[in-house]
Amino acid sequence: MWQYEKRLEYPVQVTCPDVKFAKLVITQYGGPDGELSASLRYLNQRYSMPTKEAKAILTDIGTEEMAHMEMIAALVYKLTEGADPKDFEAAGWGGQWAQHDSGLFWTDANGVPWTAKYIACLGDPITDLTEDMAAEQKARATYEHLIAATEDPLAKATLRFLWQREVVHFQRFGETLNAVQEHLCGKHMWMGQEMK
Amino acid sequence: MWQYEKRLEYPVQVTCPDVKFAKLVITQYGGPDGELSASLRYLNQRYSMPTKEAKAILTDIGTEEMAHMEMIAALVYKLTEGADPKDFEAAGWGGQWAQHDSGLFWTDANGVPWTAKYIACLGDPITDLTEDMAAEQKARATYEHLIAATEDPLAKATLRFLWQREVVHFQRFGETLNAVQEHLCGKHMWMGQEMK
Amino acid sequence: MWQYEKRLEYPVQVTCPDVKFAKLVITQYGGPDGELSASLRYLNQRYSMPTKEAKAILTDIGTEEMAHMEMIAALVYKLTEGADPKDFEAAGWGGQWAQHDSGLFWTDANGVPWTAKYIACLGDPITDLTEDMAAEQKARATYEHLIAATEDPLAKATLRFLWQREVVHFQRFGETLNAVQEHLCGKHMWMGQEMK
Amino acid sequence: MWQYEKRLEYPVQVTCPDVKFAKLVITQYGGPDGELSASLRYLNQRYSMPTKEAKAILTDIGTEEMAHMEMIAALVYKLTEGADPKDFEAAGWGGQWAQHDSGLFWTDANGVPWTAKYIACLGDPITDLTEDMAAEQKARATYEHLIAATEDPLAKATLRFLWQREVVHFQRFGETLNAVQEHLCGKHMWMGQEMK
Amino acid sequence: MWQYEKRLEYPVQVTCPDVKFAKLVITQYGGPDGELSASLRYLNQRYSMPTKEAKAILTDIGTEEMAHMEMIAALVYKLTEGADPKDFEAAGWGGQWAQHDSGLFWTDANGVPWTAKYIACLGDPITDLTEDMAAEQKARATYEHLIAATEDPLAKATLRFLWQREVVHFQRFGETLNAVQEHLCGKHMWMGQEMK
Amino acid sequence: MWQYEKRLEYPVQVTCPDVKFAKLVITQYGGPDGELSASLRYLNQRYSMPTKEAKAILTDIGTEEMAHMEMIAALVYKLTEGADPKDFEAAGWGGQWAQHDSGLFWTDANGVPWTAKYIACLGDPITDLTEDMAAEQKARATYEHLIAATEDPLAKATLRFLWQREVVHFQRFGETLNAVQEHLCGKHMWMGQEMK
Repeated sequence: MWQYEKRLEYPVQVTCPDVKFAKLVITQYGGPDGELSASLRYLNQRYSMPTKEAKAILTDIGTEEMAHMEMIAALVYKLTEGADPKDFEAAGWGGQWAQHDSGLFWTDANGVPWTAKYIACLGDPITDLTEDMAAEQKARATYEHLIAATEDPLAKATLRFLWQREVVHFQRFGETLNAVQEHLCGKHMWMGQEMK
Repeated sequence: MWQYEKRLEYPVQVTCPDVKFAKLVITQYGGPDGELSASLRYLNQRYSMPTKEAKAILTDIGTEEMAHMEMIAALVYKLTEGADPKDFEAAGWGGQWAQHDSGLFWTDANGVPWTAKYIACLGDPITDLTEDMAAEQKARATYEHLIAATEDPLAKATLRFLWQREVVHFQRFGETLNAVQEHLCGKHMWMGQEMK
Repeated sequence: MWQYEKRLEYPVQVTCPDVKFAKLVITQYGGPDGELSASLRYLNQRYSMPTKEAKAILTDIGTEEMAHMEMIAALVYKLTEGADPKDFEAAGWGGQWAQHDSGLFWTDANGVPWTAKYIACLGDPITDLTEDMAAEQKARATYEHLIAATEDPLAKATLRFLWQREVVHFQRFGETLNAVQEHLCGKHMWMGQEMK
Repeated sequence: MWQYEKRLEYPVQVTCPDVKFAKLVITQYGGPDGELSASLRYLNQRYSMPTKEAKAILTDIGTEEMAHMEMIAALVYKLTEGADPKDFEAAGWGGQWAQHDSGLFWTDANGVPWTAKYIACLGDPITDLTEDMAAEQKARATYEHLIAATEDPLAKATLRFLWQREVVHFQRFGETLNAVQEHLCGKHMWMGQEMK
Repeated sequence: MWQYEKRLEYPVQVTCPDVKFAKLVITQYGGPDGELSASLRYLNQRYSMPTKEAKAILTDIGTEEMAHMEMIAALVYKLTEGADPKDFEAAGWGGQWAQHDSGLFWTDANGVPWTAKYIACLGDPITDLTEDMAAEQKARATYEHLIAATEDPLAKATLRFLWQREVVHFQRFGETLNAVQEHLCGKHMWMGQEMK
Repeated sequence: MWQYEKRLEYPVQVTCPDVKFAKLVITQYGGPDGELSASLRYLNQRYSMPTKEAKAILTDIGTEEMAHMEMIAALVYKLTEGADPKDFEAAGWGGQWAQHDSGLFWTDANGVPWTAKYIACLGDPITDLTEDMAAEQKARATYEHLIAATEDPLAKATLRFLWQREVVHFQRFGETLNAVQEHLCGKHMWMGQEMK
């Protein structure tokens, strides 16, 4: 179970509201490679990991990604602060306003709602950890796209922090994959030599 | 942000594995009215609530529903303990095994993956709290369906605990709705008298 | 079965075409909280209602919501009258034109097609009527968002009529919920006292 | 708008309940080629038809398909009459019971909820009427599959009635397509000679 | 199996980049009536065709539609050549950039990912060939919408080539339907005279 | 463009029909980690690869995965040869029969239709190749699940061939990732040192 702690993992700042950019940022909230995908992927996969360490790392990172969802939510709120229907309309995000007003929703940048079809769990630890490394790469690339799409130095700083965390997660999943492969050695070969 | 605490909110027990029943229980993990729907609905809606108290209650209940997801995951694992492909096949749940082996996945009892289309956020606190009351009713009814579908007294006890929590949440959302209506009085009438 | 009567429930008028606004209004045609959701939810739930009165009210309101779909369709047509591809493009609704030309389609304001995942039927009358009350609130809130997003007094009048109907439906579902609870008294308690 | 008339288009009968068969029949309620698909396709397409007659025929058939949805609903209810959770489970339809109890839902025979992605509207009358002819063929074929999957003579009779109506609709759409082509002659050639 | 031949079926040209138009064209890549829908529909349906000729024609056309996907991909690339994030943003296609950068993706013009729900296979050759004729009409109509939405003569020429191919396919499916009906004569009547 | 060659990449054999197993095997046709996912992922990603070699390898493997789809289709047909509605029903696959008869369809083992939401393209070659390595692992794991779920030595041999190809593809993607990283060196660092 979880305990909520009322603070963000890292302060979220923007120089000034920018609804157009908020429309892009939302993909890291509810898009295919966003923080919800990450969190739900890891918190779900941990059950079929073969070692305590692998379970722990998936729980830790899955929990941290929830904190990232909060940061993205905060970023979207700061980017839309004070915006009225006309501002949403002008930013090409009228659909958000018509359907959610000032509420958030789990969609990508086109308004497509989040689905578990974005993520995977094969129950095979080698596979699932490789999937997780790919997931971190996808999140990293999306943050790079977003950083390139804004001039706001404070928004960039927030996104860079999240980008950096994905890089660290990628490395930790790589180490975990190595450790799990060693742990499984002989029991489950996947390089073509044999198969049950 | 959240801190993970390595224990279940309530002990999960079953008398003996029952893959057929696991196939039904999974709907409370990733189905339309399950714990993921509840958690993501509340954690998302809290941002547009008008009072600190309403934000806090959505955060609290959203966080508790995450603990319920863990309980359901544990229940599914106990119900499928030691099951092999033939057992999954015999239980009509071969698709789970073929696609996820011993891994879990966010689906309903038919294998349909979870989607944010199941939940709503209109950004209007009266609406969102009414939606939440309906959500708790839907979760309650699903637990009643599950309790009626098993003879296992220990599984029933686990499900009854969760059922009871939904009833409590329903009541708390009712109180919050009253408080929010009072808070908004005069500012936002929704009974036909006036409209912006 | 139904008989078609060739007239709208209420006259639909606009001051002048406004493709940008049409793009938002379409969410009440095929979006999550639009008239199709309402109609199909009620016409489907009536089968498991325990009293003739409850069945009748769901049939009536479900049938009226179909008439509202017609009104929304008429409104979208008036708002797009005479628009050419460039007008759709300029309004950010080029996708509508490319895929449907002057035809309508069951989507939300972002072009996401309607799905039954938006609605629910638990087969439990208390639950389903609470869900219906939430549905009416969601429709009400969406109409308020739309009314706030246009300056056109005639379009506003049409939307206000529909808004008012949702408020009335909300009240009628509240009364039906009370009546059904009374009817079921003793048979199905859902306040924590007992459970099958 | 529509008026509801409290009777079925044709009496629905079954010899005895058969939950396994009900699980298949539901595809004509909420599956890709079922009555909901038909009704919503036609009621939506009529707006962009070029003649009064074409509009009228789409409205008529769309309205009749709604009556067919009622017949399918009645058939599913008769096939599941008196069934308890164990009966649903034994029929491989436990997911239906867990999620909807005795309520209906808009899904196909695998539990996949209905979506507007199943249908089309291109705004081009030649295209849309050809699509409608294909739709009637798909409904016809599905009825043939269902008729072949049951031994119950009364259920067969009901399905045969619906099958026959699809054949008639196919023919009427063929006639309408001819009439519309004649009406458009010269204005919109689609056989390769010219193009705007 | 297939052999890849490194050339386009027909040269793809544009006068100058036009991101706004690329956003529309993408629907023929991954939209409901685009080339992916066509290809996967035919390559899948061929298995249940009753004659060698019908199997062959579905394989041929399905394979050609894959070549059309390549042409559409090339067209989108030429229309977005040199575009930076700001250009995507200005064209209302920022979501594409945020999520895919310079990569393509299988979506419609609104960013909705492709799904097999768009296509059908009933296993009945009459039905499936009628569906295919409708599919060609839908593709034809979409190309007409796209041709009308651009002034670029070179882009128009490319689209006109594809449009013409759809018209030819429509005719070939019509001939195949006739041949299959003749082949089946007496075995499978679908005009109301009899039924298994 | 592609040329079709009328033979399978590898002969497909089964000892005897087994509809229950066919229902599982179909996930490699249209499920999340099946051959359609693989093929469409690679054929789409090749456009944004930075070297000719990387483009070529994605084209080659994407084309080979299409041949694998044919093999899976052939396998499903052999496993269902001569099956009637009752056989499908008894195997828990009645929904397949009701909706597709002897036709195939792009679904997973639960009947959920294929969607592009299963795959990704970020336009970043490092990311996309890592995603491809994960994809091959997921396909490999699914083949292992299937091999474990049948006793049929001939079906196993077919699946083992496909399994082996995935292992080879995994290795080739690994080599390509290395080559692309070398090619990009200095231009695009993703290990935390710098970022645009």
